[in-house]
Amino acid sequence: MSDIASVRHLAVVGVGLLGASLGLALKRRGFAGRITGVARSQATLDQARAVGAIDAGTLEIEHAVRDAQLVVVAVPLGAFDETFEALARHAPQDAVITDVGSTKLSVQRAAARWLANPERFVGAHPMAGSERQGPEAADAELFAGKPCIICPPEVSDPKQVAAGATALVESLFQHLGMRLLTMTPEAHDRQVALTSHLPHAAAALLIETAMQHGGWDVASTGFESTTRLAASNPPMRRDIMLANRDALLAALDAMAGNLATLRQRLSDGDGQALVDWLETCKQRREQWLADREKIQKGSRMNTDEHG
Amino acid sequence: MSDIASVRHLAVVGVGLLGASLGLALKRRGFAGRITGVARSQATLDQARAVGAIDAGTLEIEHAVRDAQLVVVAVPLGAFDETFEALARHAPQDAVITDVGSTKLSVQRAAARWLANPERFVGAHPMAGSERQGPEAADAELFAGKPCIICPPEVSDPKQVAAGATALVESLFQHLGMRLLTMTPEAHDRQVALTSHLPHAAAALLIETAMQHGGWDVASTGFESTTRLAASNPPMRRDIMLANRDALLAALDAMAGNLATLRQRLSDGDGQALVDWLETCKQRREQWLADREKIQKGSRMNTDEHG
Repeated sequence: MSDIASVRHLAVVGVGLLGASLGLALKRRGFAGRITGVARSQATLDQARAVGAIDAGTLEIEHAVRDAQLVVVAVPLGAFDETFEALARHAPQDAVITDVGSTKLSVQRAAARWLANPERFVGAHPMAGSERQGPEAADAELFAGKPCIICPPEVSDPKQVAAGATALVESLFQHLGMRLLTMTPEAHDRQVALTSHLPHAAAALLIETAMQHGGWDVASTGFESTTRLAASNPPMRRDIMLANRDALLAALDAMAGNLATLRQRLSDGDGQALVDWLETCKQRREQWLADREKIQKGSRMNTDEHG
Repeated sequence: MSDIASVRHLAVVGVGLLGASLGLALKRRGFAGRITGVARSQATLDQARAVGAIDAGTLEIEHAVRDAQLVVVAVPLGAFDETFEALARHAPQDAVITDVGSTKLSVQRAAARWLANPERFVGAHPMAGSERQGPEAADAELFAGKPCIICPPEVSDPKQVAAGATALVESLFQHLGMRLLTMTPEAHDRQVALTSHLPHAAAALLIETAMQHGGWDVASTGFESTTRLAASNPPMRRDIMLANRDALLAALDAMAGNLATLRQRLSDGDGQALVDWLETCKQRREQWLADREKIQKGSRMNTDEHG
């Protein structure tokens, strides 16, 4: 089985914003299989059913997964160990498992720790989100057009199994309209540390620094946009920081080193070095925005071509 | 003279975005006096006249200021010394001088260095801007509703002179629809270092760090907003950094200290300290946004009341 269309029973473990949006998006896009949701509270399950994200809900993971062909783990990062432990006991041996977690090395390690067939686990990080939470915020278009990083299992033995599992998971996220990127968990975690977790930390650091050292009567729209990420959910951010600790520590050290260089240039009054540095950063950002625009245009064209 | 309405001749030295917008805004709001612009190139003067920002333009500062009652200095920070030197030679002894520079201590020092009557200089920082530049981007509503920091002269001797000059400058920016705040140059520079110059530096540092240590295929809208300020004009940012060097060095050191504390908490795996810190920063930002909203509503109400 390597096509989402042939899945008859999909289990979504965790029906918060991401899990519920995934169920809703599949249904809106014509997925014909059954979707069972798992949550910790009946209220969450009722809400997920009410918005049309799942066909049935259960508080007991074993009831949801025992005849599932595909399991999507959409629980907070702190709950992966217990979830994989339950899947090891209750999911069929040939079920394919994926996830939507924001870090990938910690998730892959948890999979290796608990699952009897880790070659059937294919980590994924659909890069979509919202400041809203819970199944009531479910959005069938949350994933469309966004990147999704896939981390295929690193196994050499039952290669066919891993390849089939990877193809099925890719088919799932492609069906949601996502643009797929394949990476190792290490490369993924390093990149999101630099481009997401470090900016989140910097946003909070800027607020902390401004609030310690004087009023901010004069703070303006620039301060607002630079610190926007500090509005994120604190327990979720903490989980992500801890799950990606090594890569984020490396990113913080790199940032501290660059900050020290900037400090030296400023202290020296080296205007030429400062303007060259500002110019390089500005140009690099423009190049990134242009590249992204090109990729998005390309992916829209592909979507059009395939109807 | 303490009311902008009684000014018969206003000179604007520098008719880039800010200078030209100021002229245009005054004219749109019924200012009856004459406005003469000064620029380094005839093309800039022609453009400023074409958009209706000035009545006349000249390349020679002495022609513009010799019978001006009010002079607005809107040149880049690097050009204040030569501008004040020229004003000392050519402006009337009783002319009031103000500016629109992004730092205030360096400007006040330049005024004290050159002007015979520094009690007639009232520094101002209208906190308005745009990523666009030049008189062709002039916008009559650029200043409306934004804060403007006023730094009254710190002189005790000819008190009446300083008070009158301050009242006139306040009248000017109030007439543009701005919300006035009074501060010392030191307090201004410390606050803008923390809430503007440090965020600008952080935006560039985040780009530098991401680009040094791996691709950024996965960078998303969060990275985009956090680094938005890196799109600013590099020579202008360099001038601001150098003009506010001491306050920015202090802000960079404070940021580095907070970064080191964060690194330690993360390295220790201290989830409680991390979540408390994230929660405090998030709440403090929400409080700031709520306060700002309240102030803006209040200032809109005032505007309504006064027609």
